Amino acid sequence: MVSKNQIKLITSLQQKKFRKEHKLFFAEGKKVIQELIHSNFSLEYLFSTAAVFPGIDPKKILTISETELKKISALTTPNDCLAVFKQPESKSINPSGLIVALDDIRDPGNLGTIIRLCDWFGITELVCSEETADIYNPKVVQATMGSIARVNVNYVNLEKFINETQLPVFGTFMDGENIYKSTLPKEGIIIMGNEANGISPEIEKVVKNRLTIPRFGDLQQTESLNVATATAIILSEFKRN
Amino acid sequence: MVSKNQIKLITSLQQKKFRKEHKLFFAEGKKVIQELIHSNFSLEYLFSTAAVFPGIDPKKILTISETELKKISALTTPNDCLAVFKQPESKSINPSGLIVALDDIRDPGNLGTIIRLCDWFGITELVCSEETADIYNPKVVQATMGSIARVNVNYVNLEKFINETQLPVFGTFMDGENIYKSTLPKEGIIIMGNEANGISPEIEKVVKNRLTIPRFGDLQQTESLNVATATAIILSEFKRN
Repeated sequence: MVSKNQIKLITSLQQKKFRKEHKLFFAEGKKVIQELIHSNFSLEYLFSTAAVFPGIDPKKILTISETELKKISALTTPNDCLAVFKQPESKSINPSGLIVALDDIRDPGNLGTIIRLCDWFGITELVCSEETADIYNPKVVQATMGSIARVNVNYVNLEKFINETQLPVFGTFMDGENIYKSTLPKEGIIIMGNEANGISPEIEKVVKNRLTIPRFGDLQQTESLNVATATAIILSEFKRN
Repeated sequence: MVSKNQIKLITSLQQKKFRKEHKLFFAEGKKVIQELIHSNFSLEYLFSTAAVFPGIDPKKILTISETELKKISALTTPNDCLAVFKQPESKSINPSGLIVALDDIRDPGNLGTIIRLCDWFGITELVCSEETADIYNPKVVQATMGSIARVNVNYVNLEKFINETQLPVFGTFMDGENIYKSTLPKEGIIIMGNEANGISPEIEKVVKNRLTIPRFGDLQQTESLNVATATAIILSEFKRN
């Protein structure tokens, strides 16, 4: 049974301002929820129509009907469970190894996929410009498939962050050096630009190392890569050696 | 002005059976529509609230209101135009070079992104199992960003297709050879498996070359890559040399 106040609270968490106010977020589906629980995210409530979660304080589990779940879910086709978690505090940025920095990634699906990629490639630091989508947006949480628990995300003034770093800074541009022929270091900041506009002019000014992913298709026509697939290729290149 | 019959026809095209029956599909947004027109897709109608399209038979352009566009659009936030095209006949498969083969990719966004990747990497042949999403699904068309015009897609019995090919066949599995250390040929079939289940057992039996994308994150936990990002990494490896 889910109360009216709970419905109101959970649906409000689809909006960033209420997530910020309550310092809460929610995740859906057994797989993602279990990953978050195992990663010591602090569980507030778990609403479930059927799923069994061993090892969880039974007082936190509320059985609900499918109709009720539909009311609180952000999905068109809800799963069988939804859990509300506390937003953990971000740890401060560890300025070593490879760091991915996002310059205004707006699409929650792209952000979620990039977090999952960071996790796959063992990159634990993700730095986001303040205009980047919120990692606790339900669509981001869903797209990370739980890897949100293993990547430390900080929102910063990106220009200032880059100006102050000691690490080499990399970005991809149309006129950069062929990434397949570049010697890539084990430490550095990799900047990924906005879906529509790429890296912004202010950030471009402070990027010293210009790379490019060569294209093999019809040069006149093939237009661009999606930012998440471009991130996949770039991280693969940095890590493959 | 859009007639009731046109609204009925266009909304019916969100469903595969009606797309098949009418041999039509639709695309939204100036960029995608222009790409399709320039690639000689046969335009039936273009509904536009504002956008100007030079070089198009004016009889095919119908000015409509935003309210009308909302009725026919598949997008939550419609663009300013929507165009209906004839489905072209697929050309038969050219069995040379690199071919991407999809084993039951169900998500339209993933399929669209993979088509865009094929285009980027100059791969013009995409072969899909019959259970793979339909390329004329509006969400696929949107995710391809127009590159659907440059990739030849065929739906086939995948097991039969692989059994009959002379090309080497590659797939990624947990226990495959490290793709970063493999010598990859310029010709071959690269199989990408279903989002949830990977490559199916029937197809796995006929894959001779087993590859793996090594993971660098916490081996116990990081679970998998999204199929579109995995495709990006694999195509990049095949093409980089």
